[in-house]
Amino acid sequence: MPRFALKIEYHGAKFCGWQKQSKQNTIQGTIETALSKLGLGRPPIFAAGRTDSGVHALGQVAHLDIPTKFEPFRLSEALNYHLKAKRIAILDCAIVPCDWHARFSAIKRHYVYRILSRRAPATHTEKLVWHIKKYLDINAMQHAAIYLVGQHDFTTFRSAHCQAENPLKTLDQLTIEAKNTSHGFEIHIHAYARSFLHRQVRSIVGTLERVGAGAWSPKEVQKALEARDRMACGPVSPPFGLYLVDIGYAEDPFKK
Amino acid sequence: MPRFALKIEYHGAKFCGWQKQSKQNTIQGTIETALSKLGLGRPPIFAAGRTDSGVHALGQVAHLDIPTKFEPFRLSEALNYHLKAKRIAILDCAIVPCDWHARFSAIKRHYVYRILSRRAPATHTEKLVWHIKKYLDINAMQHAAIYLVGQHDFTTFRSAHCQAENPLKTLDQLTIEAKNTSHGFEIHIHAYARSFLHRQVRSIVGTLERVGAGAWSPKEVQKALEARDRMACGPVSPPFGLYLVDIGYAEDPFKK
Repeated sequence: MPRFALKIEYHGAKFCGWQKQSKQNTIQGTIETALSKLGLGRPPIFAAGRTDSGVHALGQVAHLDIPTKFEPFRLSEALNYHLKAKRIAILDCAIVPCDWHARFSAIKRHYVYRILSRRAPATHTEKLVWHIKKYLDINAMQHAAIYLVGQHDFTTFRSAHCQAENPLKTLDQLTIEAKNTSHGFEIHIHAYARSFLHRQVRSIVGTLERVGAGAWSPKEVQKALEARDRMACGPVSPPFGLYLVDIGYAEDPFKK
Repeated sequence: MPRFALKIEYHGAKFCGWQKQSKQNTIQGTIETALSKLGLGRPPIFAAGRTDSGVHALGQVAHLDIPTKFEPFRLSEALNYHLKAKRIAILDCAIVPCDWHARFSAIKRHYVYRILSRRAPATHTEKLVWHIKKYLDINAMQHAAIYLVGQHDFTTFRSAHCQAENPLKTLDQLTIEAKNTSHGFEIHIHAYARSFLHRQVRSIVGTLERVGAGAWSPKEVQKALEARDRMACGPVSPPFGLYLVDIGYAEDPFKK
């Protein structure tokens, strides 16, 4: 039974996250329904990152096993036909070895968090950014970010519902980019790691926002990290600003 | 009675264009309703460009006269409060001389047209781009664009309903930009002129698309222009890709 990898883009605002739940509109459930329309049954799909409700993806990766032969290009075209009104798009599709796993074979994950920083509300990027009206001090945020890079116990920055056994993670990079876009000034916070804890990026971004706003000093972020206490975290930022950008593997499954 | 200039951004998809019409949802009508909520009556608003149904703006400019004193910043904040759910945002506001006119004082207009060029459907930019699945030859489009720059009779490229007395216009620049975005490969067609005819940009873009697709040669665009015949035009491109970017004045009314 051939195994297929899919690269998936989606607008998360109208979905209750990736993972299938009964009676909820989810990305996994919507793709499985599209598969069933191709006469392929409802094979389960495994994603590299189970994004939360409202979170977007530019390059989610998932795999599935299909009982019949299918050209990868034909599979992505057929899925896109059924997904086109759903704001989910299959960007790429490839056959992978039977022991390849979208989640467990992944060695790097890249998220970006978009903050729109201006007085006027968002018109073209509504539900695609976190809109903040007040001025944010990017230098202070960058300064605070340095304390979080490297291997740490991230208990402070993970959800109380996080199921990971170990709160020890290595944050490879945490960079803050100032970006003038045609729709206004944005701050993009890029986070790279082998894997993340539940709500880790949004917990970090919400805390960095407090630093940018002048409510916290960069040093207080270090103290919060060292406290290893969820109560020491700043407010969790809203899901709409978060994008799963890319998943890294030892070998790129979509390389032509 | 002080005169105010507004710089306005909007998502055009849900509006029947700028200009007020009875029983239609328009940008002008929506802003006038917001003004009435400030207790300012319904003073008429005059825009630099009366954009069509579905067309977006990043920097539309309009003016209006208000009977009472109002700080420009307070006026934009109050309008944004009432407009925030409407996908219309006031980006800037300034007091201008009483003989200043958003439309007649304008000396330059800049439009951009966004084409998303990829197989998969748009998810984050739905109704914000023209999605074209097939490959477009940008060099051929650029080649064809050269024939359209300068002063010409643009009868071929204007709507049958165009009310301008004279079809003679000077297109200052028509440039084609290849752009890799986080949401896929885009082609941006920038058009600059003192003023445009009705549907001129969309008629030009629809014709250039035919060249990019290989259906027309660049030389055929020159022939179409010289025909001075609406029937010689290619198909008009859809409104969703078009943005009114900026209006130029002898002196920038919003300069701080």
